[in-house]
Amino acid sequence: MNDLEIMNNVLKLAKKGEGSTSPNPMVGAIIAKNGKIISRGFHKKAGLAHAEAKAIDNAGVSLEGAKLFVNLEPCCVWGRTPPCVDKIISSGIKEVVFSTLDPNPEVKGKSLRKLRKHGIKVKTGLLGKEAKRMNEVFFKNMEERKTFVSLKVAQSIDGKIATRNNKSKWITSLKSRRYAKRMRDKYDAVLIGINTVVKDNPALCGIRKNPYKVVLDPSLRIPLKCKLVSNHPHKLIIFSSMPRSKQKLNILKNKGVRIFNVNAKKQIMPLRRVLNTLYKIGVMSVYVEGGSFTLGKFIDAKIADKIHFFIAPKIIGGDKAITSIGARGAAYPDNAVKIKDLHIEKIGNDFLITGYPEFKHAKRKKQGK
Amino acid sequence: MNDLEIMNNVLKLAKKGEGSTSPNPMVGAIIAKNGKIISRGFHKKAGLAHAEAKAIDNAGVSLEGAKLFVNLEPCCVWGRTPPCVDKIISSGIKEVVFSTLDPNPEVKGKSLRKLRKHGIKVKTGLLGKEAKRMNEVFFKNMEERKTFVSLKVAQSIDGKIATRNNKSKWITSLKSRRYAKRMRDKYDAVLIGINTVVKDNPALCGIRKNPYKVVLDPSLRIPLKCKLVSNHPHKLIIFSSMPRSKQKLNILKNKGVRIFNVNAKKQIMPLRRVLNTLYKIGVMSVYVEGGSFTLGKFIDAKIADKIHFFIAPKIIGGDKAITSIGARGAAYPDNAVKIKDLHIEKIGNDFLITGYPEFKHAKRKKQGK
Repeated sequence: MNDLEIMNNVLKLAKKGEGSTSPNPMVGAIIAKNGKIISRGFHKKAGLAHAEAKAIDNAGVSLEGAKLFVNLEPCCVWGRTPPCVDKIISSGIKEVVFSTLDPNPEVKGKSLRKLRKHGIKVKTGLLGKEAKRMNEVFFKNMEERKTFVSLKVAQSIDGKIATRNNKSKWITSLKSRRYAKRMRDKYDAVLIGINTVVKDNPALCGIRKNPYKVVLDPSLRIPLKCKLVSNHPHKLIIFSSMPRSKQKLNILKNKGVRIFNVNAKKQIMPLRRVLNTLYKIGVMSVYVEGGSFTLGKFIDAKIADKIHFFIAPKIIGGDKAITSIGARGAAYPDNAVKIKDLHIEKIGNDFLITGYPEFKHAKRKKQGK
Repeated sequence: MNDLEIMNNVLKLAKKGEGSTSPNPMVGAIIAKNGKIISRGFHKKAGLAHAEAKAIDNAGVSLEGAKLFVNLEPCCVWGRTPPCVDKIISSGIKEVVFSTLDPNPEVKGKSLRKLRKHGIKVKTGLLGKEAKRMNEVFFKNMEERKTFVSLKVAQSIDGKIATRNNKSKWITSLKSRRYAKRMRDKYDAVLIGINTVVKDNPALCGIRKNPYKVVLDPSLRIPLKCKLVSNHPHKLIIFSSMPRSKQKLNILKNKGVRIFNVNAKKQIMPLRRVLNTLYKIGVMSVYVEGGSFTLGKFIDAKIADKIHFFIAPKIIGGDKAITSIGARGAAYPDNAVKIKDLHIEKIGNDFLITGYPEFKHAKRKKQGK
């Protein structure tokens, strides 16, 4: 196997940790000797062993002269586990190939230099783009100290998420809905607006895991009997604004619900403050599922790292139907938000179009809010 | 070459007549002897020679024992040209392979029987589905005695055709717009609502040809200086409802504009009556280009044989933006119009999704209007 083939396997291996490594990245490591794989490891969960350490421990043979492949620069600092770099140096490995530098400023480039200082050959950049995309959440977290925001829309081809009667069950197919549910497993939290809670009473579960559920609820209108409060109150995070009912506040808090008070003007949540709070409490990625107003506010505020459109091949029609991306929107077509790096796939009869919004940021300092 | 390969070539050949054969179908004919093509012909324009006749005349060698391939059952009646069947019989051709029966009740199956009666071997059904789709306009015309209706939408991914300011220039790319313009060449007429005339003042030209321009204009609001009136008044057809200004009516008529008076209730055009009139005056296919209300009315009335969505990978957003398919729309997601036989292609950065709407027709006789 050549280096590229091995690195491809490293990425696949890393993905086994998907959804459970946060706030850590997904990492896979393979040790090879003369092009033959002799050991593997991947990072399973924050707090457990790193991929490189596992691969070294798993080898069971001498690593003298071996080559280590890993998708991210190995760590050189003590976290919850010892630094991998030291372990690599003492293992006898003679060459390390990794896809990208670690975006964490405490590590970036340091491990590379340390390895080279100890006579180990280092090669970087192999499948760099793919490796970065795979850990897009981690890169966002490290480079910007912000939560990664992914929007999800499930609409008819003519851009509606509910009919003129506000009926939305169901537009996309069961297959698409299950797919979207499985996507929740990739994120630390799911976020929706209070209208969607009141209208749909969703449970917002994943398939394999139970993410945090974040609700933007300026007036604390959340029904005490809704599924989010009843099922897993300790997984519920509400952003509210000076709620009037102390009693309701206390009931929710006693159940284990976390409530943050942010100053919402005109019932509109200051999204950047919401996201800063989420980042501080360790929510590294959030999956925004609606409704129309909430998704629109994220677009208006130019906050979105990724977007998923599940599109059903059907026409709902009607100028009173609910549009997928509401709120204010662009004034001119030139101000529309372009979506880059599109990927399109068929999910049953539906389409899933995934891409990366590219916001034009005003030169003036007006973009803050 | 085997039969299938030859028939594939027949379909390609037939397509050379695209846009100019109406009200006739596109037809290609190939004559082969021992698997070798010896002659070809296609139908260029109504009134000119049929494909089979041309292929026979073009041959220049004896056709004794030859095999004729054609995508449609040859004609057996005198139209503007003599019946092809007789020409085939007297040519010495011993076998005829065609894709579909002629949907014209005056021909359907008759030619087949006549050929067989004269000892000619006949095989049908080869690439039947493809041949029928290629001539979908002709099949609609013949089987239902109705004009073929194709809708065109050019929207953002979130289903908007204009921003909250009603600005629409431009949402899709130049490449898509040129592609859409070229599509006009395939239809006898382009149709829009009066609001689009007033707002955009379009010319509605094709690339190679100049189709009829049909405007739904209940109150005869069309500006006398708009491009449709100025450029090619004899190509303009207006459907209006008891227009108040006799003077304006006369000015338009004197310019050569055709105006049909239909009884519009509440400013809403009775679309079936409009289409019956178009069929009667020889408009065999119409390309409905908007705007939101007009496209919505076609969907509400369950009138559409085909639909094209040009989708730009951008988000306009906003609940006041103009939705692509407006008017009334479905009350429940179950009433949404499914789109079948989807075909998706990339046009530059945009997508073009083409499909066939499948309307649920009510059991009761309420669907008339």
